[in-house]
Amino acid sequence: MTFEEKYSQYKSAFEKRLSEFCNNITCKPDILAESMKYSLNLGGKRIRPVLMYAVSNVLGLDEGKIENFALALELIHTYSLIHDDLPEMDNDDFRRGKPSNHKVFGQGNAVLAGDALLNTAYSLLIDECRNGGEYVSAAKNICDCAGIYGMIAGQSADLTHENDEDPDENTLDFIYENKTAKLVLAAVLTPSILCCGKYFSELKVFGRETGILFQLTDDILDVEGNFDVLGKSIGKDKAEGKYTCVKLYGIEKSKVKADVIADKCTRVLEGIKGDTRFLKELTNFIRQRIY
Amino acid sequence: MTFEEKYSQYKSAFEKRLSEFCNNITCKPDILAESMKYSLNLGGKRIRPVLMYAVSNVLGLDEGKIENFALALELIHTYSLIHDDLPEMDNDDFRRGKPSNHKVFGQGNAVLAGDALLNTAYSLLIDECRNGGEYVSAAKNICDCAGIYGMIAGQSADLTHENDEDPDENTLDFIYENKTAKLVLAAVLTPSILCCGKYFSELKVFGRETGILFQLTDDILDVEGNFDVLGKSIGKDKAEGKYTCVKLYGIEKSKVKADVIADKCTRVLEGIKGDTRFLKELTNFIRQRIY
Repeated sequence: MTFEEKYSQYKSAFEKRLSEFCNNITCKPDILAESMKYSLNLGGKRIRPVLMYAVSNVLGLDEGKIENFALALELIHTYSLIHDDLPEMDNDDFRRGKPSNHKVFGQGNAVLAGDALLNTAYSLLIDECRNGGEYVSAAKNICDCAGIYGMIAGQSADLTHENDEDPDENTLDFIYENKTAKLVLAAVLTPSILCCGKYFSELKVFGRETGILFQLTDDILDVEGNFDVLGKSIGKDKAEGKYTCVKLYGIEKSKVKADVIADKCTRVLEGIKGDTRFLKELTNFIRQRIY
Repeated sequence: MTFEEKYSQYKSAFEKRLSEFCNNITCKPDILAESMKYSLNLGGKRIRPVLMYAVSNVLGLDEGKIENFALALELIHTYSLIHDDLPEMDNDDFRRGKPSNHKVFGQGNAVLAGDALLNTAYSLLIDECRNGGEYVSAAKNICDCAGIYGMIAGQSADLTHENDEDPDENTLDFIYENKTAKLVLAAVLTPSILCCGKYFSELKVFGRETGILFQLTDDILDVEGNFDVLGKSIGKDKAEGKYTCVKLYGIEKSKVKADVIADKCTRVLEGIKGDTRFLKELTNFIRQRIY
C-alpha cells in the first residue's frame, strides 16, 4: 500500500466515526448543531487523528480503543480554530477555503460553537474514563496538552507577543511547543498511554518534533503558499506582526531548521520495533506539504 | 446558627479551596493566569458551591469529596459569564460592580480566559474520575448540564431568540431550564450521585426549580434592582429584547410565578429525611434577593 493509500485509509476510518458522531448531534437550537457540524466538516488533513491511528497500528492497539480519543482531539482542535479565527484573535475570514465559522454564523454563535465542541470533547473523554485507569490517564494527558500549560498557553503567548519589536528564540519556542506541538503530542502519546507507556519516551520526542515541524511549515507556507491550495489567507503573519520562525530567522534558515527537525523525527523512530515506515513518510509529507 | 452564618460558613469553606487553587495557577504568560483569577475572584454569591456543600451536609457526605466538583462547577459558571459578557454576546461592561473581563484584558484574552477556565474545570473532573464509578458519573452529569443539551443550548437559544416579536412560553421554559437551571441542578445532584443516588428524584425537582427561581428573580431584578447593590447594569433585558418572564407575563405575574416556584422548592424538601432547614431558607433567600 502506498503512503497516500494508507493515509486515506486512516482518514476514512476516522471520518466514518466523525460522521456517525455528527449524525447523533441533535441539540437545539438548530444553529448550535449546525455551527458545530459546519466546522467539523470543513475537511482538512485530519493530521492528529491520522497520527493517533497510525501510532496505534505500530503498537498493535485496536482502533476501537482510540477512536473516541481521536474524535475528542479533533473536536478540541476544531474549537481552537473557531476561536482563533475570531476578529479579536487572529481575525481570519477563511478556513480551508470556506468562510470561517463566525463569518457564517456570527461572532456570538461562533464563540458558543467553540465552547460546545470543547465541552463535547470532554463528554467523550469522561465516558472513556469508565474503562480503567489507563483511559483516565490518556484523557488527562489530552486535557493537559489542550490546557493552560499547553495549547491555551501557546495561544495566549501568540496573542500577547504580537508586534513584539525584539523577538527572541525562547518565546518562539514556547509558542511553537504549546500552541501547536502539544495537541500533536497528545495524538501520538494517547496510544502509548493505553499500552501502559509503550515507547513513551521515543513517541514523546517524535510527537513534539512533528508538532514543531508542522508549525514551521505552516509559517513557511504563510510566505510561500498559494491561497487556492492552502484554503486560507497568505501573508497574514507578517501583516499582523506574528512571532514566527520566518520573522526570527528568515525563510532560508527556517527551511534548514525544518530539515533538521524532520531528520530528528525520522531518527527517533529507529528506536521503535515495528513498522514505522508510514510515520517516517508522514514526517516527509509534513516537511514537503503545500497545504 | 443563623441562615447567614451557615451560608457564610459554606461560602468560606469553598473560597478557602478556591484560593488554594488560584495560588497554584502558575501558567504563562502572566495575563492568562491573571485574567482567570480576576474573574474567579470577583466574588459573587457562590450560590452553586454553597448549594453543593449544603446538600452534601444534608446527605451526610464528607465535604472533602465534593470540594473539587464545587470548584469545577464554579470554574464552568465563571467561564460562561466571561463569554456571555463579550460584546458579541450579552455585551456587558460590568460584572459584580467591576469591569467585565474583556474590559480589563481585551476581547481576545477574555475568550482565552473562558476557554482556560472550562478546560481547567475538566482537568479537575478527570482527576476525580480515578476515585471510582460514582465519581465518573458525577463528572459526566456536570459535563452534560454544562453542554450542548444543557447550559450552552440555553445560551444559544437566548442569543437566537433575542428580539423575537412573538415570544412563547415553550421557548422561555427552554431558556430558563437550560441557561440557568442546569448548572444549579448539577450542584444539587453531585452529592446525590456520590451517595449512589440518595434522594435523587427529590433533589432533581429541587435543583431544577431552584435554578428557575434564580433566573426569574434575576429577570425581576433587571427591572427593579439597583446598580450599586446588584453590581451590574439594569434594564438591559428590555433594551436588548431579551426573552424573559417579565417580557412574557409582566412584572406582577412574574412575581406570582416566583412565589409558586419557591413554594414548590420548599415542599419537595419535605420528602427528604434530614435537616433541610438551610435549603428552605436558601429558597426564601433567592426569592427575596436584591443582588
